[in-house]
Amino acid sequence: MRDFAHVTLGQRLLFGTGSASIHLAAEVERLGAQRVMLLASEAALPSAQQVCQGIDVALVHTNVVQHVPIEVAEIARSLAREHHIDLLVTVGGGSAIGLAKAIALTERITIVTVPTTYAGSEATNVWGLTENARKTTGVDDAVLPASVIYDAELTLTLPVELSVSSGLNAMAHCVDALWAPRADPLNAALAEEGIRALAAGLRLVHSDPHDLHGRELTLYGAYPAAVSFASAGSGIHHKICHVLGGTYALPHAQTHAVVLPHVLAFNAPAAPAAAARVARALDGRDPVTALGELYRDLNAPRSLADLGFSESSISEAADIILPAIPASNPREVSPRLLAGLLHDAWAGAAPGTSTSPLAQAVR
Amino acid sequence: MRDFAHVTLGQRLLFGTGSASIHLAAEVERLGAQRVMLLASEAALPSAQQVCQGIDVALVHTNVVQHVPIEVAEIARSLAREHHIDLLVTVGGGSAIGLAKAIALTERITIVTVPTTYAGSEATNVWGLTENARKTTGVDDAVLPASVIYDAELTLTLPVELSVSSGLNAMAHCVDALWAPRADPLNAALAEEGIRALAAGLRLVHSDPHDLHGRELTLYGAYPAAVSFASAGSGIHHKICHVLGGTYALPHAQTHAVVLPHVLAFNAPAAPAAAARVARALDGRDPVTALGELYRDLNAPRSLADLGFSESSISEAADIILPAIPASNPREVSPRLLAGLLHDAWAGAAPGTSTSPLAQAVR
Repeated sequence: MRDFAHVTLGQRLLFGTGSASIHLAAEVERLGAQRVMLLASEAALPSAQQVCQGIDVALVHTNVVQHVPIEVAEIARSLAREHHIDLLVTVGGGSAIGLAKAIALTERITIVTVPTTYAGSEATNVWGLTENARKTTGVDDAVLPASVIYDAELTLTLPVELSVSSGLNAMAHCVDALWAPRADPLNAALAEEGIRALAAGLRLVHSDPHDLHGRELTLYGAYPAAVSFASAGSGIHHKICHVLGGTYALPHAQTHAVVLPHVLAFNAPAAPAAAARVARALDGRDPVTALGELYRDLNAPRSLADLGFSESSISEAADIILPAIPASNPREVSPRLLAGLLHDAWAGAAPGTSTSPLAQAVR
Repeated sequence: MRDFAHVTLGQRLLFGTGSASIHLAAEVERLGAQRVMLLASEAALPSAQQVCQGIDVALVHTNVVQHVPIEVAEIARSLAREHHIDLLVTVGGGSAIGLAKAIALTERITIVTVPTTYAGSEATNVWGLTENARKTTGVDDAVLPASVIYDAELTLTLPVELSVSSGLNAMAHCVDALWAPRADPLNAALAEEGIRALAAGLRLVHSDPHDLHGRELTLYGAYPAAVSFASAGSGIHHKICHVLGGTYALPHAQTHAVVLPHVLAFNAPAAPAAAARVARALDGRDPVTALGELYRDLNAPRSLADLGFSESSISEAADIILPAIPASNPREVSPRLLAGLLHDAWAGAAPGTSTSPLAQAVR
């Protein structure tokens, strides 16, 4: 076995459908918090107020913006100080959690979070701030939420298409964790669990968006996904998607969903243990085939062209991505292979069409 | 899905064969420790000194006794105070870790541990102390080791028979975690990983005690085993073994090894999800059959009679155990069923002989 250092982050997860308000009240009590600041977007406010019905909220803050602009963070920090806030509660997706982290980073205030998407920021000690259109990220244990409260009822309103791409984004956390820089067997075990739960959950959600068990499985699966990703770091998949999102402004979750099968098809032949994990989690013999069947069942997004990516950008994108690919990647990546992968993803071609070892050998 | 509350304990795991001394020196440096107290039994002292070659040790303490008698703990606490100790380092098994925890409980000193067995105390916040022949246990995050250092080279001297029973004791942590009071899917995922690694590792160790990969897999598997057990709590298996060990003084690891297949055969028919996890981890269709094959391959201990348990104690033992069995157990336990289970285990009969639903229906 390879040497590894695995850091487990201490956190409480409270899981219960319809129990968010009860769990939140219990956490506020347990932590002895007196002055709660609620962070939720205007859109999330109705469910946030529902969730907060059992606690006193000293301050409601709805100025929640994607990627946490520094000005937005500074305003929220000042308010937290002025109001002597001793607990930050978020209800919503990654933007609300991101803002809470920005406050916690400087004010050292504990966070309790009630996530309503599958993005996974709740399980990480990573913060991000955007200044002059440039996003800075960092790691600080003070921004790790002390408690995560999952309530699948809060995800019932997430439309199916968004559930699918957000869930596949979470699945990409799992798969990439298998060969990311700090990949290790504990991360791999959690990643396998995440893939299994997400696949089962998404199939149920796709066939019936009101299926609570499907919503529960998907929300649950997002947790080991986030934990494994946070611990293992960014692999080739996240490096590719980071450039596609950052440089070409492609939509986050959908881009991850489209790219994932191509990365899996690319790496799987060179990573037998990882391939076996994915296959086992998807209950199939071959991981690429099994993931393809899942995508068919979910009617998942397939092509970067559909997301607005232009064929003429492929070579430039490959040049930007290539230096960022971690040395831990199991298969060597050449400019030609990477461009082939991006071309397959752009066209919505079968994964591995132009990058499989077989295709390479034939050429 | 059932509601659950999952508490993840924050901890660092450093895994590397032949790297214990390097990892320990790095941890001492990272923690800024100046005054290290080494806790190791006389027997473990040679390897402990090897492991400590890269650090300054202020105090070597070898008065390590099983079950941590309070007098032994008090002496060690006084010494830690007198010598202004700021870091406790253990090299050895559960007794050394237990003593470090007893010190940390009152003195609030950080622990770094280098375990050389598969007992798993390193991953828990549970302490134990024995006073007037009575063991008290409790939970305190201050006794959770900050860092765990695994080096499979240190386990090479563990004899095969002891490795097998100690490894099966760890496997019992996993299996029992599937139906213990705080069982949840995250614990189950870690338990499954533990079973898989332990089974593969023990087979290699049994066929060649010097097989480093087998030693690595077994030592690694003991970690998710301990984590899942610590989080899920004691199920029926541990309640049975606690009485067999405490009241009848049967040897710890061997008792766990003997009882495990009988508990699995008893609960599996009533716990399909748990049964599927065990079967998948053991790469078999039926969990009981697959575990039986593993026991055959490992020449594992089979009978409580061989360990000194008397047939005439079965009914008394069942009476003591019964009230302790958690309500979470998936199958109802009657005095007759429990006595049947103990009788099968006493005789070394095939698991489920007298407790399988089929056997019950026939009677």
